[in-house]
Amino acid sequence: MDLKAYLAERKAVVDQELARVLPPGSGPGARVVEAMRYSLLGGGKRLRPILCLAAAEAVGGASQQVMPVACALEMIHTYSLIHDDLPAMDDDDLRRGRPTCHKQFDEATAILAGDGLLTAAFLVLAAGARQQPTKAVLYAEVIHLIAQAAGHEGMVGGQMADLLAEGQPSSLEQVEAIHRLKTGALLTASVRSGALLGGGGPDQVAALTRFGEKFGLIFQITDDLLDVEGDTAEMGKATGMDAVRQKATYPAVLGVAGAKAQAQSLVAAALADLQTFGAAADPLRELVQYLLVRRK
Amino acid sequence: MDLKAYLAERKAVVDQELARVLPPGSGPGARVVEAMRYSLLGGGKRLRPILCLAAAEAVGGASQQVMPVACALEMIHTYSLIHDDLPAMDDDDLRRGRPTCHKQFDEATAILAGDGLLTAAFLVLAAGARQQPTKAVLYAEVIHLIAQAAGHEGMVGGQMADLLAEGQPSSLEQVEAIHRLKTGALLTASVRSGALLGGGGPDQVAALTRFGEKFGLIFQITDDLLDVEGDTAEMGKATGMDAVRQKATYPAVLGVAGAKAQAQSLVAAALADLQTFGAAADPLRELVQYLLVRRK
Repeated sequence: MDLKAYLAERKAVVDQELARVLPPGSGPGARVVEAMRYSLLGGGKRLRPILCLAAAEAVGGASQQVMPVACALEMIHTYSLIHDDLPAMDDDDLRRGRPTCHKQFDEATAILAGDGLLTAAFLVLAAGARQQPTKAVLYAEVIHLIAQAAGHEGMVGGQMADLLAEGQPSSLEQVEAIHRLKTGALLTASVRSGALLGGGGPDQVAALTRFGEKFGLIFQITDDLLDVEGDTAEMGKATGMDAVRQKATYPAVLGVAGAKAQAQSLVAAALADLQTFGAAADPLRELVQYLLVRRK
Repeated sequence: MDLKAYLAERKAVVDQELARVLPPGSGPGARVVEAMRYSLLGGGKRLRPILCLAAAEAVGGASQQVMPVACALEMIHTYSLIHDDLPAMDDDDLRRGRPTCHKQFDEATAILAGDGLLTAAFLVLAAGARQQPTKAVLYAEVIHLIAQAAGHEGMVGGQMADLLAEGQPSSLEQVEAIHRLKTGALLTASVRSGALLGGGGPDQVAALTRFGEKFGLIFQITDDLLDVEGDTAEMGKATGMDAVRQKATYPAVLGVAGAKAQAQSLVAAALADLQTFGAAADPLRELVQYLLVRRK
């Protein structure tokens, strides 16, 4: 398969759907919707939505049916970027090649835009459940697992831990524990929610969840490597910042070569998780291998 | 009925349930759970949960069954207080008689604690739906209406509008439009979600929703009046700040006497919305009249 064409096609579909579920606002609070749309519709790889759609298809589901979940995942990811970029957090000026939300608007608007996107994610999920009442029980499961992955037991807890670890010497175990929460949990939830709502059986959902966990780790390792080796212009955000902030990263504890070897061995294990799946899982196979060679 | 005893008993039940659904955290992100619990369990009237429980009982439902919704409403309210108190927003030092979250912890932790509480609200709602699969469709409805009330079409949009209106001369229509979003939407959702999940019929839900809308307005008018006439020690937060910030308030556009008259006439109309309900709606009747005499 042509992964580049696949990613481009999927990104276009997701972008269109995101613009549809979050139309421009009106009335006295319209400015916050403008800021939400600025950050949500301003680029991004759409990796979480694409993982969700691909997982649904891997179990024989229709990607269109899980589209509300795909959109919600991207909204949650975008809110987390807006809040992480705030001066009190990572204090970043550049994101997806443009000024960060608080630079383009202001801090108060950026805080509210993040809050609005997080809330809108659950609005979109609930709207999905209302449109498919026969799947309401499955949607309750999906909303639960996404909230768990995004909240204090997942992404929010991971961001807290990441901030606390700045400037502290970290072991591999600590780095992994932080990243499992900070980025791993939502990536895993993306695969798992797609598999569940796509109609996967318990064994399929379990296998894809294991795949998703490894995908999350590989993503973080390669993300850390890009911060060392990547190019600011290509990535649309500042590089080399992990070292400046003394962040807990894989290259910092394993070295660059060690981190690369670790990522390669995890890719092999992730492919093994997909063994029982047929050609419908090819996009997932391509996606996980692509992590090793991505430039942004 | 003895409203004071009723409120005390309900607050105790809600407090206990909130502490149960958000136990202390462990692991690298435990600090954010500590901050979430600091703000969530540190007092508060629990007005939104109590409204939700009372609305369920008004339609003959069991309050215990809507407890997850009651908890979620208080979590959303608390997150909004944490974020509104931030330096980039209202920059408040005192809340519920104690240092605000960012004063007690720090700004980054407070942002994350708010994010964590908002996410946990939907986790609790989804957990409620999982526990009562026969009500999963009704829960989808409830999650949808709460997300709508809390997000950019409700509370978040209202906070944005409120910030933009600071220092601007406002008409009564503008003040009402802002407060319908900022506080009215979530108070209305509290009543409506209790009525819906409590098993109310369409006419009952519609009547209680109208009651909730008026309740929201009366609450905001009396809140504005307390900022003029209330006592900092009694209220546990700074008073007189609306005038300092040139906020859009009812006393500012109607005068103190005019705002009081407006509140009284809305209470009469709210009581009329409850006409077809029997004694089971007495707590709601008492609650709305209590707004006129509350000291905090």
